[in-house]
Amino acid sequence: MNISHIEHLGIAVKNLEEAIPYYEKVLGLKCYNIEEVADQKVRTAFFKVGDTKIELLEPMSEESTIAKFIENRGEGVHHVAFAVDGVANALAEVEEKGVRLIDKAPRGGAEGLNIAFLHPKSTQGVLTELCEPGAAK
Amino acid sequence: MNISHIEHLGIAVKNLEEAIPYYEKVLGLKCYNIEEVADQKVRTAFFKVGDTKIELLEPMSEESTIAKFIENRGEGVHHVAFAVDGVANALAEVEEKGVRLIDKAPRGGAEGLNIAFLHPKSTQGVLTELCEPGAAK
Repeated sequence: MNISHIEHLGIAVKNLEEAIPYYEKVLGLKCYNIEEVADQKVRTAFFKVGDTKIELLEPMSEESTIAKFIENRGEGVHHVAFAVDGVANALAEVEEKGVRLIDKAPRGGAEGLNIAFLHPKSTQGVLTELCEPGAAK
Repeated sequence: MNISHIEHLGIAVKNLEEAIPYYEKVLGLKCYNIEEVADQKVRTAFFKVGDTKIELLEPMSEESTIAKFIENRGEGVHHVAFAVDGVANALAEVEEKGVRLIDKAPRGGAEGLNIAFLHPKSTQGVLTELCEPGAAK
């Protein structure tokens, strides 16, 4: 597996309208995209910092895994996403090495990425996403 | 404040000797430095991924804040460190904007950086470090 960079950090927040001003006015970053990911029941807001994005995740339903994360642990870093040069091959490689997978195959994520999650039981507690640009529609 | 990139992610782990092989053999990253930070009572291991470092933090004492973090929340992402062009000025700026500070002035961190932490109560739960290269000794 070849990881080129950290594509994004996913950060769980209760409310985008409260969180975005902190990232913009205190940290001086610029929100360039807000997007709903319906199947994850989240609204996302994106900021670019160096070669990494910050993806704020607001739950749209109490059934969202983000709502459950916040209920259990409070707001904070939810996942780390590494850019790889082929998610399907990377999944096969890490599974061969004994890593437990959440996603057995890549699926669509925000910003048109192909994504898959590794289980934090296999990654010392860091919910880890592998991702690559998806095919243009 | 001008943030150029995410300088590093601090990740709390129970044991470097168990965690390093995951980062090297599964993720394919290379540990290039192991360093003790005596005043934080941690041993650190560093990996480079794009323009960001991953800093694994192993507690050397039960009194370490990292030991307490792991006890309360388990292993996982402990803090996010942004590279700024002047930590002292950035602290003054964010304090003026109402952010609670953990460090009122920059102090020395691993890898010769000048660092300071913002309080997660002011940063939507993300323990946030600001850092810059320190003066060469």
